[in-house]
Order: sequence, then C-alpha cells, then structure tokens
Amino acid sequence: MSNGHIFVGEVIGTAILILFGAGVCAAVTLRHSKARASGWVVIAFGWGFGVLAGAYTAAPLSGGQLNPAVTIGIAVDTGNWDKVWVYLLGEMVGAMLGAVLAYLVYFAQFQANVRRAGTGEYTQGASENNAGASGDTDDVPLPTLGIFSTIPEIRNPVANLITEVIATMALVLPILAFGQTKGLGESGTTVLVVSLLVVGIGLSLGGPTGYAINPARDLGPRIVHTFLPIPNKGTSDWGYAWIPVVGPLIGGALAGLVHNAAF
Amino acid sequence: MSNGHIFVGEVIGTAILILFGAGVCAAVTLRHSKARASGWVVIAFGWGFGVLAGAYTAAPLSGGQLNPAVTIGIAVDTGNWDKVWVYLLGEMVGAMLGAVLAYLVYFAQFQANVRRAGTGEYTQGASENNAGASGDTDDVPLPTLGIFSTIPEIRNPVANLITEVIATMALVLPILAFGQTKGLGESGTTVLVVSLLVVGIGLSLGGPTGYAINPARDLGPRIVHTFLPIPNKGTSDWGYAWIPVVGPLIGGALAGLVHNAAF
Amino acid sequence: MSNGHIFVGEVIGTAILILFGAGVCAAVTLRHSKARASGWVVIAFGWGFGVLAGAYTAAPLSGGQLNPAVTIGIAVDTGNWDKVWVYLLGEMVGAMLGAVLAYLVYFAQFQANVRRAGTGEYTQGASENNAGASGDTDDVPLPTLGIFSTIPEIRNPVANLITEVIATMALVLPILAFGQTKGLGESGTTVLVVSLLVVGIGLSLGGPTGYAINPARDLGPRIVHTFLPIPNKGTSDWGYAWIPVVGPLIGGALAGLVHNAAF
Amino acid sequence: MSNGHIFVGEVIGTAILILFGAGVCAAVTLRHSKARASGWVVIAFGWGFGVLAGAYTAAPLSGGQLNPAVTIGIAVDTGNWDKVWVYLLGEMVGAMLGAVLAYLVYFAQFQANVRRAGTGEYTQGASENNAGASGDTDDVPLPTLGIFSTIPEIRNPVANLITEVIATMALVLPILAFGQTKGLGESGTTVLVVSLLVVGIGLSLGGPTGYAINPARDLGPRIVHTFLPIPNKGTSDWGYAWIPVVGPLIGGALAGLVHNAAF
Repeated sequence: MSNGHIFVGEVIGTAILILFGAGVCAAVTLRHSKARASGWVVIAFGWGFGVLAGAYTAAPLSGGQLNPAVTIGIAVDTGNWDKVWVYLLGEMVGAMLGAVLAYLVYFAQFQANVRRAGTGEYTQGASENNAGASGDTDDVPLPTLGIFSTIPEIRNPVANLITEVIATMALVLPILAFGQTKGLGESGTTVLVVSLLVVGIGLSLGGPTGYAINPARDLGPRIVHTFLPIPNKGTSDWGYAWIPVVGPLIGGALAGLVHNAAF
Repeated sequence: MSNGHIFVGEVIGTAILILFGAGVCAAVTLRHSKARASGWVVIAFGWGFGVLAGAYTAAPLSGGQLNPAVTIGIAVDTGNWDKVWVYLLGEMVGAMLGAVLAYLVYFAQFQANVRRAGTGEYTQGASENNAGASGDTDDVPLPTLGIFSTIPEIRNPVANLITEVIATMALVLPILAFGQTKGLGESGTTVLVVSLLVVGIGLSLGGPTGYAINPARDLGPRIVHTFLPIPNKGTSDWGYAWIPVVGPLIGGALAGLVHNAAF
Repeated sequence: MSNGHIFVGEVIGTAILILFGAGVCAAVTLRHSKARASGWVVIAFGWGFGVLAGAYTAAPLSGGQLNPAVTIGIAVDTGNWDKVWVYLLGEMVGAMLGAVLAYLVYFAQFQANVRRAGTGEYTQGASENNAGASGDTDDVPLPTLGIFSTIPEIRNPVANLITEVIATMALVLPILAFGQTKGLGESGTTVLVVSLLVVGIGLSLGGPTGYAINPARDLGPRIVHTFLPIPNKGTSDWGYAWIPVVGPLIGGALAGLVHNAAF
Repeated sequence: MSNGHIFVGEVIGTAILILFGAGVCAAVTLRHSKARASGWVVIAFGWGFGVLAGAYTAAPLSGGQLNPAVTIGIAVDTGNWDKVWVYLLGEMVGAMLGAVLAYLVYFAQFQANVRRAGTGEYTQGASENNAGASGDTDDVPLPTLGIFSTIPEIRNPVANLITEVIATMALVLPILAFGQTKGLGESGTTVLVVSLLVVGIGLSLGGPTGYAINPARDLGPRIVHTFLPIPNKGTSDWGYAWIPVVGPLIGGALAGLVHNAAF
C-alpha cells in the first residue's frame, strides 16, 4: 500500500468512525434528538458499528487501523515502524474531520442549545420514542464536550489511566490474535468481529472513563471542540486530555509485547 | 439480470424492507402494541434487520439495492446508467407495497386509534413488557405519519438537508467499498454487514431527521399515507417531502464521486 | 437424512428454540427474575438467538427447520412432501419438551407466583439491574400463558390472522431465498442470518399478536400449559389457539408459492 | 497444541472473558458508572462479547474453551481426557486474573463505595445517559458480590441446580454440534456464533440464577472477592458456591452424553 492510499484510507475510515461515535453521543445527549436518553446500549452499539463502517471502508486502501493504539500495537508486535507516521497522521486528520461532520449532522440541535425550551420550533410526534426521559430542566444549556471527547465519572488520574490501559489491551490483543484465526480473514468477517469487540468494550469497560481506547478518537474531536463556534459549549477540559492519549498508547504497546511473547 | 428479474427483485426486497421499517415504527408508536415505547434501539435494529431480510431476498434476482440513493451512487461510480430506471421503478413500487403490508399487520391498532381508551377490547398480560411506559393520555388519537415517513425534530430545511446528505454518504460510500473487501462477497455476508451499518446509521445519525437516507423509503410510504383511510391519521406533511428525496440523492451521488476518486 | 435423524434433530432443535423463547418470556415477565421488565428488545433477541441455538444444533441431523410453516413452505416450493410428516412430528414433540424445560428452569419463580410478596425468600442485590420496574402490585399472581403461547393485544380474529400470515411470509420467503445467496451456505452463516431475521420480525411485526409465526411454537407450549401444575396459571385460552396455527401455515404456503413463481 | 500453549491460551482467554463479564456487572451496578442501571440487555451482550473477545484470542493457542463445563463436555463426548487438567488449570487461573483486572478497571468506583454520596468528586454530564435510574438512596454502600459471582433470585438449591444444569446443556450441546455445521469452522465464525449463543442464554435462562454455566467463571472471581480489600464488599456467600460449580459440570457432561448418543 502506498503512503497516499494509507493516508486517504485512514482519513476516510477514521472520519466515518468519529462521525458515528460523536454522532451517537449527540443522539443520546442532545435535546430534540429522536434518540434522546436512549441509554448506554445505544452508545456502545453506535461506536461499534462506527468501527464496522469505517474499517470496512478503509480496508481496501489502508487495512483500516483507525486508531494509533492499534497502529503502535502492530508496530511493537512486528517490529515494523516504516509507515507508522502515515497512519498516525491520517488517523488524526480523519478524527478531526469526523467530529466536524457529526457537528454538521446535529447542527440545528447544537444551535438549539442556546434557546430556552418552549420557544424552539420542533415536531413532537416521533420523539415520544425516547425511553426513560431524563428529568433535566429544559431551559438550561447542556455541556457539549461529552459528545466529542471522554470525561471520567470519577476524576482520578492514576485510576483513569489504568482503566484506559487495560481497556485498550482488551482491544488490541484480540485484534492481533484475530489475524491467526483460521478462515476469519478469508471470509472477510474480521472487521465485523472487531466491531462487536468494540461494542463489548463499551458495555463492559466504558463505565469509568467513557472508553477512549484510541488517542485520535479523543484528541482530534477535543481540538475541534475547542475551535468550533458551538453555543454554550462549556469547557474542553484540556487538563484531562493527556490520559486518553497516553493510556491507550501504553495499552496498545503492552498488547503488542504480550502478543509477541505469547503467540 | 433481466429487467423482469430486477423489477421483481426490487419490488419484493423493498416491500420487505418497508414492511419491517414501517412495522417497527408502528410497533413502538401505536397503543396496544407489545413493543409500545420500547425505545430507539428497537427502531434502529428493526430497520437494520429489514435491510437484512429485504436485501438477502432480493439478492438472487436484482442484487438487492432497495434504495435509489444506492442505485444512483453505483451509477455515478461505475458510469453505467443502463438499468437505473428499472431499479428506481421497482424500489418505488416496492416501498408503496411494503407500507400497505405494514398497515395490514397493524390494522386493528390503526383502527383503535379512533376509540377512546378504556373502551378498546384488548388483552393486558403481555403488554406489561413495555419498558418505560410513556405518559401520554390514552384518549387522544396519535398522529400516524411518523410510522410511514420521516419527520424532523427541528424543522430547518438547510440543516435537515445536510443531515440527510451526510447520513446517506455514510451509507453508500461503505457499501461501495464493501465490494473490494477480500472474501466478504464470497462468504455471502455482505448483506449482513450492510444491515448492521444501517443499524449504526440509525443509532448515530438518526436523531435529527429520522434518517430517510432512501428516497423510496420516504416518498413511497408518504403517498400511501395520503391515500389510506386511516382514522385520525393527521397530516402527510408534503411540505417536508422533498428533503428526504433530494438529500439522499445528493448523498448517494457524492458517495459515488468520492469512491470513484479515492479508491 | 434418515427419518430417525430428522426426528431426533427436529426434537432437539425445536426443544432448544422453545427453551430459549419461553425462557425469555419468563425472564421478562416473572417476579424474582433478574431480567424482569427488561423490555421488548430482550424478548426479540431471546427468541432470535433461540433460533440460532436450536437450528445450528439440529442442522447436522435434520437441517434445522424447527417450524411447520417452514416445512410446509419448502414442500410447496419444491413439491416434495415425502418427509413432511416426520418434520412436523419432531417439531411438535420438541416444542412440548422445550416448554417443559423452560418451566423447570423457572420452577422456583413459577412456585413463587402463589406466595404474597414480602414473604418470598430471595436475594435482592442483582435484581436492581431491572430497567423500568413495572408498577404491578406485588401480591397478585400474574397470568402465565404469555410465557408459553401468544396472546393478541387486540382480539380481532381476521386482523390477527392477517398479521400472522404476513409475518410468517416475511420469515419463510427470505429463508427460501437465502438458499440462492452466493456463498452464504458454504460459509455456514445461513442460520445466523435467519436468527437475526427472526429478531427483526419480533421487533417489527410482533406488536399486535406476539408473532407466533410457527404453529408448533404456539400449540406445543399451549398443550403443556394446559397440563402443567403451575400455581395460579390462569386460562390457556384455547379459543384463540387456531389462529397461530392456521395463520402461519397459510403464510408458509403462500411464501412457497411466491418463491416458486418469482425466483 | 503443547501444554504450555494450552495453558497460556486458556489463562489469557478466560481472563479476557471475566474482565468483560465482571466488568459489565460492575458497569451496570456501581454508582459513578456511565452504564449505571442500563439493564439486563447490557449484561447479556457484555458477557457474550466477552466470550467473543476471549475465545478468538485464545483460539490460536488452545482452541478457546474457557469453561470447565465445555472442557468436560468435549472429554465425555470424545473420550479423550488427556489434556483436561491443563485446560481446567488455565481456566481457573485466568478467571481469577480476569476478576482482578475488572477490579482495577473499576478501582475508583469500588473505592467510592465507602463514601457518602455528595462528597464524591465526579463529573456529571455523561452519566445522564443512564436509562431508568434506580431509586436507591445514594449514601448506602452496595453489596459487591454480584459483580464477581452469581447470586440466585430465589434461594432454592434443587431449583437453582436444575436451572444451571439445563442452561449449561443449552450452551455445551450447541457448541458440540457447531463442529459438524458445514463451512462454519472454515469461515472462522464459530466463535461469533457461540458468543451470540451466550447472549441468548443470558437473556433467556439467566433470570433465576444469573447463569454461571461455567464453574471457573463463578469460583475464580469468588475466591478473588474473598481476598480483595474492597470497601464494604459484603458477603462472599460460600454457602451457595457449590451450585454454580456442580450444576455446570453436570450439564456439560450430560451434553457430551447426548451429543455422543444422538449425533
């Protein structure tokens, strides 16, 4: 694969991943969304199927890594660091592009975050689908960072870092092992399996920190959040930003070491 | 594939798609449905598995496109417009047929939309499964358009159009790329992957407009809604009808251009 | 396949199907179940993965039809009625066996349906997982038929019959078409696709009648419900029993005719 | 496969399984988790995708049995008991390791189980995703055993044992049959199917006892729970511990006998 193909593949694939991922967080969080308050299962499947969409699309061009932690894990495992910088660059550019696309999809909803409830013009019917309507008062703007980047439930740098390291190992070690599963690659279903793995990580390990498990997934959208003119967007929380970068990089590298040693 | 096979395949496949899709909207919306108020995750999986059912059924006859945006995207990508009109015709006829079938499946529920609550004769037991029962008063008829066609949460033509364009690109670009994924087509699981992609689009990008992403899916059932004698059916909202037609067509064509240029 | 293999395969496979299906209805309905009130999505996936478990298990012995409507549909489509009686017999015996197994799995829960709440000895902790706790008063026994067989939301024989006919066609026609999908059978994933199809039917078309779509699935457990000594079990509702038998048989036969004509 | 490969494979695979499984129970149970109170569907998919992650990872090394009931079932079916002790040892060590990893992922949440609510420092935003917030008072510590091991809803040894026996047969008999499904093994999707089977068992048969269906899954984490210094951890309930060991072993052996006789 040429550098150009790798770059374009990673940009498109990561953009699709973040479009779906930031999209589902917007869908569940924002008022005037049909998926408002539809729960954690929607978040986890939304991100997982974002991996499915992005990685299958990128696969013919770049293999579809979409995640610096995966890229580092493969490099540590194989010892081949040649194209790593192209992958990382594509992943970061794609993550930022995807965050902008998600913002555009939910543009009217973001704009409505300034208005007092009751004055917004919206159609009621279908929004009754919302299960478990939350009790928030409708005339206070919502913070928006959680749509773009991760926020820990309990702010504890050591614990948060450990959570991201372990959760990322639980992503990258299986991905490295999948390559050795008889028939999986030939049947073209590897990406499907990885996407369900990501659903599982979200369901099981996402509780404490919101499972970045991907430095580009967190850092790219955080940069976008900092610069986009979103009404009442609230803090971009740069004090936390290093954890979802460093934790996944450590986790990916550890997974590469374990795979190299054990398999 | 002959024109006859294509037409029959697209009619049957799109009819099944809309039967499942309109069906799940009826299931979640209508009173006296066991799936009443069961949430957005049910909507998204119902539509996705409608794609699975319809496209696998149509596949041996027509390939199972079921969506003018997909048909246009393929034509733009390949430059082959020969059979496009047959596909479009089959998709529109199928979408209308599917809407009628969904209406028949929920016939008693639609009829019960006239009666005051408390007078309807229905069996209670199993309906206790409903999670998060909504607080709607039981003696007001519900609007029914949302079962057939899409309604935006916030009515903003430019924003709604952008949402549909991006969401449709997120459908058609991956579908075009899947054809190049090693082994996927041979293993017969492409449609399965597409159906999960559609679940993901629903979860992540369906919040603002209800994700038409398919002109036939929206226009066909809207025509049926206009003519069916549903009690208290409410408006068919033709003022909005051009957006879920034009947006997906633009999105499909753009996806074809991007795929042709980048892959 | 010998008659013996077919019979044993259909008995085991259908028993597993009903064990999962009646099991998930018990899980969501009965007090003192960790899945109490967990919603329609759980019902639909539980039945679908029951198909997955039962049909994959039966596949090497009988092909795993597990459903008289499927058996009739195949016979109408192919014109081969030779082994039909063996399949039907195995499916009915298996359905009854599965209902007994589900009763045994939830034995303590069924017994607790006599006691007044507050006197039952049970461990609290994990049951807090229940989403959307229902508001039923805890000292009234629940009717139990809905765990075994289907009950319509609105009792209207013509409408209920039409619902079952269309929903069964939406099952059997895709199944007949799957056999023609390139590669699907060779990759061994046909049953997986069918199981997701059944999830979709549940989500989309199960609202009005609870989607029997299988005469054995409804009749077998209803017979078992009639004879099992369940405390406070309530009516077995034999007046409705013909609809979930006749409707699916008509639907299966129509699907066979359509497939034979169109494909 | 050498003893060393088998042992390492089973340790890594079972550790991943329990990391996901105990993780999802922590995610749904603990305060200050983004998945708090997100329902039974999250529990069932979390465990199922834990099987997917663990078994695919272990597959190249040990085949990925991860469960003494599966190991015994295969031995009874094939009559080959040579490597059984290696599998069992690896499964138990892995289960304990996985429980420790899950504890580390949720470390801050476990620590917060001592503090009174309102004094804990945590970020609010994203936790509004919780569907169906439970009504528990926030200043009482929660019991923690349910995160590690199973607890029956109704404590009835005979009924609990029967539940575990049948639920384990519903796991092991299909797994033994999958090996005979044409093409499934070659396409590499067997583990995917098994993981969905486990989701189905959770949804359908998990209501009464929380579905151990795996002696290592219950006993390993219970040992860890006994020794870990978790604040306010509550009882480890050793009086119940024999049932989720003996029940699954009986169920696995019976499945081996049935498979050997019928297939």
